[in-house]
Amino acid sequence: MATKRLAVVLAGCGVFDGAEIHEATLTLLAINKQGAEYQCFAPDVNQAHVVNHITGQEMKESRNVLVESARIARGKIKSLIEFKAADFDAIIFPGGFGAAKNLCSFAFDGVDCDVNPDVEKTIKSMVKARKPIGALCISPLLIAKILGDVKVTIGQDKGTANAIISMGGRHVTTTHGEIVVDEKFKVVTTPCYMLDANIAQIADGAENVVKAILEMI
Amino acid sequence: MATKRLAVVLAGCGVFDGAEIHEATLTLLAINKQGAEYQCFAPDVNQAHVVNHITGQEMKESRNVLVESARIARGKIKSLIEFKAADFDAIIFPGGFGAAKNLCSFAFDGVDCDVNPDVEKTIKSMVKARKPIGALCISPLLIAKILGDVKVTIGQDKGTANAIISMGGRHVTTTHGEIVVDEKFKVVTTPCYMLDANIAQIADGAENVVKAILEMI
Repeated sequence: MATKRLAVVLAGCGVFDGAEIHEATLTLLAINKQGAEYQCFAPDVNQAHVVNHITGQEMKESRNVLVESARIARGKIKSLIEFKAADFDAIIFPGGFGAAKNLCSFAFDGVDCDVNPDVEKTIKSMVKARKPIGALCISPLLIAKILGDVKVTIGQDKGTANAIISMGGRHVTTTHGEIVVDEKFKVVTTPCYMLDANIAQIADGAENVVKAILEMI
Repeated sequence: MATKRLAVVLAGCGVFDGAEIHEATLTLLAINKQGAEYQCFAPDVNQAHVVNHITGQEMKESRNVLVESARIARGKIKSLIEFKAADFDAIIFPGGFGAAKNLCSFAFDGVDCDVNPDVEKTIKSMVKARKPIGALCISPLLIAKILGDVKVTIGQDKGTANAIISMGGRHVTTTHGEIVVDEKFKVVTTPCYMLDANIAQIADGAENVVKAILEMI
């Protein structure tokens, strides 16, 4: 049987302005441990902003999402514009504010946010190909914004859950490591750091998402 | 029994100019999974340089080691100047070029490199307190530079092994996940990405270092 190939879409490098590093790293670990291969992607766009992760303050800098995401991927990354659904068996979006700042504008614009066109095209191409999509932490909101009537979880945060419902999605409350599966769209989601979690709980969530996805392929 | 407390010293955020992200994250995971607590530290100094992780080229930017390390620590990090050996049971240095660029200048100056004074003070204070020190990837070289006659591993790279010997250290060849223990200095080392490794092998190395350290405490 051919090795299953998963795409992982990053949104920068750091929880407050990019991809959440633990969620991204532990997604790659879960894929590798479960015998599949990964290829990282990120959109080649500037970050919405750069945040000092100690103070939480915005820094007067400009950084590129693809270039910063390459830090997590150890340089082995491709621009999301190169992504083709035919080349992969599934796709996963780790979380971090980058998903709500760089992949869509939810953090600034709320439910009426814009979505990066390459992200939207990527997700729709996977749905059309009937291939599974995983999303961690805040990223399920991005999936709901694009797909509408999809069942997801971001854990227990009422504000974000209500935003998902406003987008036409359905929200299921969950706790650490639990996953929610939407059979119609083949979407698998887990809350990760949307809960007050420790890093071992993030590893559990990532492992459970990857396991469910590999079983669907 | 009180929860064991481990300090983790980061050197930025990204393999080519900072802490290797997988090694750092998987060290934190290993500590948490094995029932101990961690506190991240980094020196409050500018990075030697900033590297574009796609092209490998230097970028005309200046970044701070502590501020960038905070991305891996999700903001919960302290300046290394605040470190006190009395507050911790052990300390671990993940790898990445940052260990050889920001914690010492080996990447630029070779065996005659300078060592960041807070890093040197930190390591010597742990040796004096008879508390274990872990080091992954290239970081064992930093330990050898400071301690001299210490037994370590960086895997199989002859150039780096010879540098360690030139510094007065002893080098043991190892493969994926293997550890070398120096009983006198209580130093535990493993090669990680100094070998051509996959991310699950990094997790193994980090777990084995943490396990050996916790048994020593």
